Amino acid sequence: MPNTTPFETVEFVGAGPGDPDLLTVGALRALQGAGIILHDRLIPQAILALAGPDAQLIDVGKAGFGPSTPQERINDLIVHHATQGARVVRLKAGDTTLFARLDEEVAACDAANIPWRILPGITSAAAAAAALGQSQTSRGRNSSVRYLTGHDVKGFADHDWAALARPGSVAAIYMGKSAARFVQGRLLMHGADPATPVSVIENASRPDQRVLAVTLATLPAILAAADLDGPALIWLGLPPRAAALSHTRKEFA
Amino acid sequence: MPNTTPFETVEFVGAGPGDPDLLTVGALRALQGAGIILHDRLIPQAILALAGPDAQLIDVGKAGFGPSTPQERINDLIVHHATQGARVVRLKAGDTTLFARLDEEVAACDAANIPWRILPGITSAAAAAAALGQSQTSRGRNSSVRYLTGHDVKGFADHDWAALARPGSVAAIYMGKSAARFVQGRLLMHGADPATPVSVIENASRPDQRVLAVTLATLPAILAAADLDGPALIWLGLPPRAAALSHTRKEFA
Ligand SMILES: C[S@@+](CC[C@H](N)C(=O)[O-])C[C@H]1O[C@@H](n2cnc3c(N)ncnc32)[C@H](O)[C@@H]1O
Ligand SMILES: C[S@@+](CC[C@H](N)C(=O)[O-])C[C@H]1O[C@@H](n2cnc3c(N)ncnc32)[C@H](O)[C@@H]1O
Repeated sequence: MPNTTPFETVEFVGAGPGDPDLLTVGALRALQGAGIILHDRLIPQAILALAGPDAQLIDVGKAGFGPSTPQERINDLIVHHATQGARVVRLKAGDTTLFARLDEEVAACDAANIPWRILPGITSAAAAAAALGQSQTSRGRNSSVRYLTGHDVKGFADHDWAALARPGSVAAIYMGKSAARFVQGRLLMHGADPATPVSVIENASRPDQRVLAVTLATLPAILAAADLDGPALIWLGLPPRAAALSHTRKEFA
Repeated sequence: MPNTTPFETVEFVGAGPGDPDLLTVGALRALQGAGIILHDRLIPQAILALAGPDAQLIDVGKAGFGPSTPQERINDLIVHHATQGARVVRLKAGDTTLFARLDEEVAACDAANIPWRILPGITSAAAAAAALGQSQTSRGRNSSVRYLTGHDVKGFADHDWAALARPGSVAAIYMGKSAARFVQGRLLMHGADPATPVSVIENASRPDQRVLAVTLATLPAILAAADLDGPALIWLGLPPRAAALSHTRKEFA
């Protein structure tokens, strides 16, 4: 159906976990054709450098708009630039549709009658599993996998701990660094095996990728000692495969 | 670490849901450089056509090796071609690490001392959510999302139905077409609201994409009547966003 508004279509684009090779072909084309790119703080320079020469890059994650741009302000920027006739790309880390506040931004476009489309990206959980050399699901082990956040609007997020504590359960925890002790406590309280394998993947897919192979028992202490400053994904129930250690040029701790 | 074997690295590559724009840049490069491409049945011609001119394409999903190539035979083919010195790409639909029997193939490489790496791809759940114009997670609605399979080794797969039946729960069901009535029965038995929104996305991201917007109550009947013959992803708890209906050129049923 043709656009019924005079505006260009706003594109919500997933940038993937950081390796430019994990951009999609469509995301690369969107970056090259964009007039305005409103991007998250987590997007590395190697990806921003792929924008077309005329693109104006606006970091909506930090300084310039304060330490973290309020969501309202991001919505307004998208609508403002789109109604000026710019080709707006809203570039989000990982996948656009996971823990990315997409709904608010899409609703703002709808309210202003601006057309949009969503280009999915590789989420950090997928890149982290690949780094471990592991499947997220495996016949006989787990026929489902869960993605959850360590934090939500109310603080530490509550989850179905009893189910997560069961043997063979596999889950990716986003934004879990500071929630690690809370998550560990809840899982142990619900009977999880302290020896459950847990992996922490910092900067998945990036040159400075690091993997910590721990257990549920040792997670909080080793995580605190490692003092990670990049984004980190916690895989509950997935240890790194032995051969992944030798097949990667990246550091394993 | 340098390879300690004379073999090329086998690449396990996610092809995404079918739209060539949803290939990653790395996957495209792998296809162009491959000598042998062992591919799933679900990979469309538009993607296979991106292989380099010298690549030999082997369909390990259907005729030639019978209606479905046994997993053992696929493992053997990977090892055989890699030990012949070929650059082998094992191309899987969607993401390599979700419902894709990656473990068996990686283990076969390990047993033969063949190095490998995994390139994640866009999984069909992400493409399907994008087609609906919906976020998989949303503040205030759901702080976790689950991917599950309708079928496992034992038949219809069992899941934590009580948790899935709760209001606000969101889950992607892979391989769910023939399990739809079973899933519906289990969820209703555990108290799910029959009015829970459910979307069925057939051929997500492809030119022949179709979306059925139903409820838990109507799912099995509408699905049976629609007689879908492409791959389909069922999103429990996610209706298509109203504007997604007008912003897509693809058919909504
Ligand atoms: C606000 S969420 C955004 C998630 C993103 N939309 C995705 O699909 O990956 C931010 C969290 O994503 C995870 N994350 C993002 N990029 C990552 C990376 N390269 N390595 C590890 N974790 C990452 C971390 O858990 C981080 O706290
Ligand atoms: C064996 S699983 C492979 C899943 C794949 N590895 C992925 O990440 O999407 C096959 C199932 O994936 C889903 N699927 C794959 N491609 C799809 C597409 N383009 N549209 C909708 N569902 C798809 C269907 O549920 C199908 O039954």
